[in-house]
Amino acid sequence: MPDTRAARFAALESSLGHSFAGEIKIGGNYVSVVQHGDQVFVSGQIPRVGDEVVVTGRVGADVPLAQAQLAAKICTMRALALLTQTLGSLDHVTRILRITVFVQSAEGFTQQSEVADGASEVLYAVLGEAGKHTRTSVGVYQLPKNAAVEVDLIAAVDERRA
Amino acid sequence: MPDTRAARFAALESSLGHSFAGEIKIGGNYVSVVQHGDQVFVSGQIPRVGDEVVVTGRVGADVPLAQAQLAAKICTMRALALLTQTLGSLDHVTRILRITVFVQSAEGFTQQSEVADGASEVLYAVLGEAGKHTRTSVGVYQLPKNAAVEVDLIAAVDERRA
Amino acid sequence: MPDTRAARFAALESSLGHSFAGEIKIGGNYVSVVQHGDQVFVSGQIPRVGDEVVVTGRVGADVPLAQAQLAAKICTMRALALLTQTLGSLDHVTRILRITVFVQSAEGFTQQSEVADGASEVLYAVLGEAGKHTRTSVGVYQLPKNAAVEVDLIAAVDERRA
Repeated sequence: MPDTRAARFAALESSLGHSFAGEIKIGGNYVSVVQHGDQVFVSGQIPRVGDEVVVTGRVGADVPLAQAQLAAKICTMRALALLTQTLGSLDHVTRILRITVFVQSAEGFTQQSEVADGASEVLYAVLGEAGKHTRTSVGVYQLPKNAAVEVDLIAAVDERRA
Repeated sequence: MPDTRAARFAALESSLGHSFAGEIKIGGNYVSVVQHGDQVFVSGQIPRVGDEVVVTGRVGADVPLAQAQLAAKICTMRALALLTQTLGSLDHVTRILRITVFVQSAEGFTQQSEVADGASEVLYAVLGEAGKHTRTSVGVYQLPKNAAVEVDLIAAVDERRA
Repeated sequence: MPDTRAARFAALESSLGHSFAGEIKIGGNYVSVVQHGDQVFVSGQIPRVGDEVVVTGRVGADVPLAQAQLAAKICTMRALALLTQTLGSLDHVTRILRITVFVQSAEGFTQQSEVADGASEVLYAVLGEAGKHTRTSVGVYQLPKNAAVEVDLIAAVDERRA
């Protein structure tokens, strides 16, 4: 892997075959990022690329595990793209404090942790030690726009701004 | 709209036809608000007014979108009432950092973001710029007391108290 | 009850009939605890003792309320065991800021708050006033490894470490 966070992000972007440049669109009346002191809150991200939600359906029925892991990766790339836009660089991230991974699950599907590993892998791959995070993974009944996965996070950063 | 937060809260209270004065009751062995430093955590709020949960059922089946948005508004008014009681005034709120909106959803219902817009509208209407928040919206299978919606939040405030 | 937090934890451990000594295993690519400043984030805990998830199934169908409350207690004991390992002693916990309780629910089951009372009782019993927390309880469709309950939390502590 390349040796800067930005380069590792770009390499992953390329390997996923999706671009996260430009505006990260949201579907409601709120904001994507709020910084308070040295904490940054990122809104729940679904696997949307541009205008399209690229992984939809119920994991364990319509959506196989590998596709759900891809969805979790895309959600997390969006969160990192938002952090880059907000902070100027991912180098300002000192730690990922918490991610919550919501998986739109079929009845009897119990591999929510395995789906969430997709999100965790992206954080480690791009941020290294700073990407070590706490995690909560649950299986929900429905997600906005029939998204297969939704991920939100709280990051610690090295800049204190009100 | 009137030009103080308290007045805007009162105007909205009046337009919703529900009073949020007096004790905000909870249904368990915990507290409604904890302040730590300049962050305030508010427990998950269901659309209860006095002793009654006023919007119950499954959104997308029993509960139409407009009613679910009303439920989200009532949950958020309760959270603001609790912040007022805790802080003495909503003027101490400097920012809403995060809201999470849980929607008790029917199978195939995917408008959780639209439901959550009800919560977001209340925050903007009462708090203005300080009401700009990050948001996570998900569709859950069941909520306490068959509530249609549950909303929790974290606020930043201008007072540091242990 | 005995008069130190460690002794109260041990007494509860004994009464539950489960040991929380040793490694607290997790099922994915993340960490159990992250401390940032005076906040500590604990990952979502399921009722696992050693290698076994001891309460599985759907609450309100396969799992009666009392068993679900036991599950919530075990999740919370795990979280406290993790705090002890991280901090050296539970005496460093100054407050539990937030717990979120996810209950794998049967259709029509609406006693998520009552299930969550199991978690709250453990926090009060062990931590006393410092255990007074905010809480969000929801009923989800599926949980990892078919766990009946999952609990995560954020604690405030008296030590500031990066």
